[in-house]
Amino acid sequence: MKSNPASDHVYFNDGFKCSTISISTNLAEPNGSSNSVGSQGSQGSKEFILTEDGKKVKPPVSTLECTRSWLKDCKRRTFNRKTLHKKLPILGWLPKYNSQDAVGDLVAGITVGLTVIPQALAYAGIAGLPVAYGLYASFVGCFVYIFLGSCKDVPMGPSAIVALLTYQAAQGSWQKSVLLCLLSGIVELLMGLFGLGFLIDFVSGPVSSGFTSAVSLIILTSQIQSVLGITAKGNTFVEIWTQVFHNIEHTRAGDTVLGLTCIVILLLMRSLSSCRIGPADEKECSSFQRAVNKILWIVGTARNAILVVVCCIMGYLLHTEEHGAPFRVVGDIPPGLPSVQLPPTSLTANETSNGVAQGFVEMVHSMGSGLVVIPLISLMENISICKAFANGKPVDASQELIAIGTANIFNSFVQAFPGTGALSRGAVNNASGVRTPLSNIYSGGLVMIALLFLTPYFYFIPRPTLAAIIISAVVFMVEVKVVKPMWRSKKSDLVPGIGTFVACLVLPLEWGILIGVGLNVIFILYHAARPKLTTELLTTQSGLEYSMITPDRCLIFPSVDYVRNLVNKQSIRQNLPVVIDASHVYGADFTTATVIDSLISDFNQRGQLLFFYNLKPSICSIFEHVSATQFVVYYQEQQLDELLKERNYVQKRLETA
Amino acid sequence: MKSNPASDHVYFNDGFKCSTISISTNLAEPNGSSNSVGSQGSQGSKEFILTEDGKKVKPPVSTLECTRSWLKDCKRRTFNRKTLHKKLPILGWLPKYNSQDAVGDLVAGITVGLTVIPQALAYAGIAGLPVAYGLYASFVGCFVYIFLGSCKDVPMGPSAIVALLTYQAAQGSWQKSVLLCLLSGIVELLMGLFGLGFLIDFVSGPVSSGFTSAVSLIILTSQIQSVLGITAKGNTFVEIWTQVFHNIEHTRAGDTVLGLTCIVILLLMRSLSSCRIGPADEKECSSFQRAVNKILWIVGTARNAILVVVCCIMGYLLHTEEHGAPFRVVGDIPPGLPSVQLPPTSLTANETSNGVAQGFVEMVHSMGSGLVVIPLISLMENISICKAFANGKPVDASQELIAIGTANIFNSFVQAFPGTGALSRGAVNNASGVRTPLSNIYSGGLVMIALLFLTPYFYFIPRPTLAAIIISAVVFMVEVKVVKPMWRSKKSDLVPGIGTFVACLVLPLEWGILIGVGLNVIFILYHAARPKLTTELLTTQSGLEYSMITPDRCLIFPSVDYVRNLVNKQSIRQNLPVVIDASHVYGADFTTATVIDSLISDFNQRGQLLFFYNLKPSICSIFEHVSATQFVVYYQEQQLDELLKERNYVQKRLETA
Repeated sequence: MKSNPASDHVYFNDGFKCSTISISTNLAEPNGSSNSVGSQGSQGSKEFILTEDGKKVKPPVSTLECTRSWLKDCKRRTFNRKTLHKKLPILGWLPKYNSQDAVGDLVAGITVGLTVIPQALAYAGIAGLPVAYGLYASFVGCFVYIFLGSCKDVPMGPSAIVALLTYQAAQGSWQKSVLLCLLSGIVELLMGLFGLGFLIDFVSGPVSSGFTSAVSLIILTSQIQSVLGITAKGNTFVEIWTQVFHNIEHTRAGDTVLGLTCIVILLLMRSLSSCRIGPADEKECSSFQRAVNKILWIVGTARNAILVVVCCIMGYLLHTEEHGAPFRVVGDIPPGLPSVQLPPTSLTANETSNGVAQGFVEMVHSMGSGLVVIPLISLMENISICKAFANGKPVDASQELIAIGTANIFNSFVQAFPGTGALSRGAVNNASGVRTPLSNIYSGGLVMIALLFLTPYFYFIPRPTLAAIIISAVVFMVEVKVVKPMWRSKKSDLVPGIGTFVACLVLPLEWGILIGVGLNVIFILYHAARPKLTTELLTTQSGLEYSMITPDRCLIFPSVDYVRNLVNKQSIRQNLPVVIDASHVYGADFTTATVIDSLISDFNQRGQLLFFYNLKPSICSIFEHVSATQFVVYYQEQQLDELLKERNYVQKRLETA
Repeated sequence: MKSNPASDHVYFNDGFKCSTISISTNLAEPNGSSNSVGSQGSQGSKEFILTEDGKKVKPPVSTLECTRSWLKDCKRRTFNRKTLHKKLPILGWLPKYNSQDAVGDLVAGITVGLTVIPQALAYAGIAGLPVAYGLYASFVGCFVYIFLGSCKDVPMGPSAIVALLTYQAAQGSWQKSVLLCLLSGIVELLMGLFGLGFLIDFVSGPVSSGFTSAVSLIILTSQIQSVLGITAKGNTFVEIWTQVFHNIEHTRAGDTVLGLTCIVILLLMRSLSSCRIGPADEKECSSFQRAVNKILWIVGTARNAILVVVCCIMGYLLHTEEHGAPFRVVGDIPPGLPSVQLPPTSLTANETSNGVAQGFVEMVHSMGSGLVVIPLISLMENISICKAFANGKPVDASQELIAIGTANIFNSFVQAFPGTGALSRGAVNNASGVRTPLSNIYSGGLVMIALLFLTPYFYFIPRPTLAAIIISAVVFMVEVKVVKPMWRSKKSDLVPGIGTFVACLVLPLEWGILIGVGLNVIFILYHAARPKLTTELLTTQSGLEYSMITPDRCLIFPSVDYVRNLVNKQSIRQNLPVVIDASHVYGADFTTATVIDSLISDFNQRGQLLFFYNLKPSICSIFEHVSATQFVVYYQEQQLDELLKERNYVQKRLETA
C-alpha cells in the first residue's frame, strides 16, 4: 500500500499523544519500500506552531515565497495601528484616561517626587558630581518617558548603579558625564530600534544578583568616606577600603555621629512603612486605625525627604559664621533651571585632571566600555521594574530601550548624567498606586519647583545625611537571601552568581559582569556538547531484542562526535540491532549530518543494523543531502518488525537455541 | 490508593514507550492528594544511564557520598591497568605485534618516509626557515609518537598549516620557531593532562572547512613567489598578492617554466595512483595487471620523491660554475644530524630583525596568540586523521595532545619547528597498509639517513620544484565540494563556514577561526534562547477541553522570559486550563525556577489553571525549592480529569450550553 502523497512530510507532535498517531513518510526510503504502512494519522491533533503573535502559521514552501511573504509582513507590521501603539504607548492609555487614573498618578507622582529629590542629591555624589547635577538629571527624562514608556511603574531618573558606572566611565568630570549621557542615550535608542533588547536575556538571575550585590557593596563603600568625613578615592571595592583605612585618623566626629544616627533613624523609619495597627483586614479597621496606618506608611515612604528637611534645618541652626556647621554640608547650588545647551564635545586644558586639552575622540576613548555597559545595565534595571509589576503581561524590552534612550538624549541637553528607571523608586511608585506613566509629570514638576525655589535652602543639607540615605537604601540590595534557595535548587548556579560577585568586587564592573555571562555561556555550551543518552533493551512485537538509544536533546556540532563514540561503544558491546530514538532531537546541523553519515558507515562495516525512530522530517532532509549511505527512519513501533524482516535479520540467540 | 513509596522519585524515559509506563510521584503534590494513581509501572523498561565507559550507574544519594565515590573512582582510575594502557598505548599493541604487522609497518613507513623528505624541505620554506629545519622536525617526534600515540595512521612531523602558523608567530626566526616548538609542546602536554581535548568539539565542520580552505589558499599564495622566482613578503592573502603583482616584472623565466612544469607533472602523477588496468575486482586480475597496478600506485604515491630526485639531477647537470643553475636551488645544507641542545631563550642584537636584543619574555610576547592557536590547530589536524581512519572506534583527543605535545618538546631540542600529524601523509600511511604506530620508526629512520648521507645532494634541488610540491598538495585542500551539500542540507551553516573562510583570508588566521567559532556559539545561544512552543487544543477523557503547550527543548535562563510571555499570551487568549508538556525539557536552572514561579502567580491572579505534565523529578526539585506557590505535576493522561475535578473546574462553554 503506497502512502497518500499529501500526507508525506507531515510531522505531528509526539509526547503522550503518540499512541493515536501513525504517520508514514517515505522520505527516508527513496527505494520506495512497498511495505510502508499507509497514513491513517492526523486525527485528533490540531497542530500549529506558535509564532510571536500567537497566530497559526503555515510554513512557506520555497525561499522565494518566504522572502516575499516576509517583505509583505514587514510592510504590514510597519504601517498598522498596532505598531504605532507599540512605538508610542501613550496612544494606548491617554484616550482611556479617567479621574481614578488621575488621582492615582497624582499621589504616586508626588510620593516619588519627594523620594527623587534627596536621592538625586545623593546619587550625584556617587557619580562624583556636584549635587545640582542630580536634580538636572531628574526632570526632562520624566516628561519624555510619558510619551514613549510602556511601563507605568518606571520612574525615569538617576539610579545608584548607573551613577556608579558613570563615575567609573567619566571619572567625575561633568563634561564627560553629560557627553556620556548623550552617547549612551544614542546607543540605547539604536539598540532599541534594532531590537537588541533580547540581549539582557543572557544575563541570568544568579549573574544579575551577583552584580547587584557587588555594586551595592561598592556604593556602600564609596559612601563610608562621607559618613566619616574623610576622603578616599578609588574605583574598586578593595581600593576604596584601603584608602578608608589609610585616612581613618582624619575622621570628623560631627560627620560620623550625624551619619550613623541618620542611618539608624532611616532603618527604623523604613520598618514603619510595613507597620500597621488594628486587625489585619483593611475593612475591619476603624477609620482612626486606617488613618494611623496611612500616616505610618507615608512617614515610612517619605522618610528620605523628612530626614533631609530635618537635617537641613539642623544644619541651618547649628551653622555659625566663623566655624561653619559641625559637619560638612552640600554648599552652594546654582539657583534656577539648568540652561539648555549642547553637551560639551571637547575639554580645555583647565577642565582635565592632567592639564592636557582633550578632543571629542579622546573623550569618547576615555569612556571605553562604559558606552556599552551603561546602556545594558540601564536596561537591566529598567526591565527588572517592568517585570516585577507586569502581572504576566509581556514586557517590550526594545521599546523600553527606545524610551530611556530618548530620555537620556534629551536629558543631556540640560547637563544631566545618565539615568534609567531606578528600582527603589519603582517600588515606591507601584506601592503609591500609580496607574499610568503620567505620574512622571508630577515628580518631574516637583524637581523643577525644587530647582526654581528651593536651592538656597539646600545649602545646609549635611553630606553625611545624603550618604546615610544611600547606605540605608543599598544595604537591602545585597541579595544574601537568594543564596539559600539557589543552593537548594541548583547548586551549579552559584558558580556564575558568586563568580560575578567576586569579579565585580575585585575587577572593573564591566569585567565582572562579562565574566559572569561568560561562565553562563560555558554552561550553555556544555549543555549543547554533552547530551545524555539513555539505552534500553527492548523487544519488538514479534519478540526480537533490540537496543534503543535515546538522546535527550538536539544533536549539534559540539556533541555529535561524543554521541557517535558512545553509540558505537554501546552497540559493539551488545551486538543487537540499534534504534536511535530521535523524539527529543529538535535540531541538527551540517556537522551532525556528516557524523551521522560516518556512524552509519561504522554500522555497515560491522554488519550491524541501525534505524532511526521518530526523526523529524526537517532533520531527515538535512541528513539526506549529505549521506551517501542510506539511512532508515520509521515512525511506528510495529514498522520495526517489518524492517528487520526485510533485512533478513535473525536473532543470534534464537539461532543457537 | 497511596502510591508505593519505593516508586517515588523514579523517572522513566518517555517516548513511544509511554503507553506502558505509569508512574505516579507525589513529589509534586506535597498535600498528599489521595487520588494519585498507584504505581503499576517499571515493567519493560530497564533504564540505565550510559556513562563514558558504558556501565550502568546508580545516582549517588548525598553530596558527601558523591564526593567519596568520586575520590574512590579517581584513585581507581589512576592506578589501574586500563589507564596505563590508555596513557601508554604502546603497551596495548606491542605484546601482540606479529610478522604481518611488521611487513605492513615497514612498507608504510618507507612510503611515508619518501613523502616526508621532500615535504619537510618544502614546509620549512612555508615556515620561513632554511630547508634543513624541515628535516630536523621530522625524526625525533616520530620516535616519541611510537610510545605515546594512540592512532596508527598518524605520521608525526611538519605540516603545511602548522608551518604557516609558525611563520605567522615566529616571523621566520629559527630561534623563535624552536622556542615556539618547545612552548607549544608544553601547552599541548598540559592541555592533554587536563583533558582539554574536548575543546576542538567546538570547531564545527563548516568552520573547519572554511579554515582549511583559507589556509590552503594562503599557503598556495605564499608559494607563487617561489614558482615565479620573485620575493613577496606578507602575512595575509591580500598582502601577499599585492606584493606578487608589485614584483611581477622580476619574474625569472627558468623558475617559472620549471615550477609550472612540475605542477602539471605532479597533478598527472597524482591521478596515476588511482588509475588501474584490468577488471575492477582485484581477484580477477592477472599477476601482470596486478603488478602494473601496484607500480602505478607506487609511482603516484611517491611522486614527490621521484620528482625531487629527477629535478635534483637536472639541477646538477644544468649547473655551471659561472652562472649557477637556470633556476634558484636550495643551496648548502649543513650535513649530519642536528646537535642536541637547549632551545634558545634569548636573541642577541644580531639575531633580531630590528637589531635590538630580545629576552625570553619579549620573545614569548612576540609570539602572542600563536601559543594557543598552534596547539589547537595541531590537535585539529591530528584528530582529523584519527577520525578519518578510526572506523568508529573512539578517538582519545587528550591522549593525542599528550603525544604530540611530548613529541614537540623533544623535537625542540634538535632545533625543530612545531609539527603534528600531517593529514596528507596520514592518508598515504593508511593507503600503504599501516598497522601500528611503529611505522614511524622507518620514516624517522629514513630522515636520519637523509640527514647523514644525502644533504650534499640536496644542494641542487630546485626551489620551484618544492613550491610545486606544496601547491599541488594544498590545491586539493580547498574544500569547494563541501559547499553544495551544505547548501542543500542546512543553509545557515554556510554563515560560519564562509565567515571563517573570508575572515581567515583578510585577517590574521587566529582571528579568522575565532570569528567562525564565535558565529557558531551565537547559533547555539540562539538555540538555547528561543525554544519552539507547540500549542494544541485537546480534550480529556471526560470531554473537557484544555490547551497543551509543549516546549521542544530545555528551559534555561535565556529562554524563560520568552516562554513565560508566549505561554501567558496564548493562555489569555483561550482561557482554558493549560498543561505544559515538559517531556522534552531535559534541563532547567535557578532563573527558570524563579520565572516559573512568576508564571504560576500570573495564572493564579487570572484564576486560570496550570498543570505540568511529565516534568522530570530532577527538575521538579529545582522548582520546588524556589516556588512559594504550589505547582502541580502529573505523569498520566487520566490524572488530568481528577485534577480538574478536585479544583471544581467546570468548562464555561458547557455551562452556557
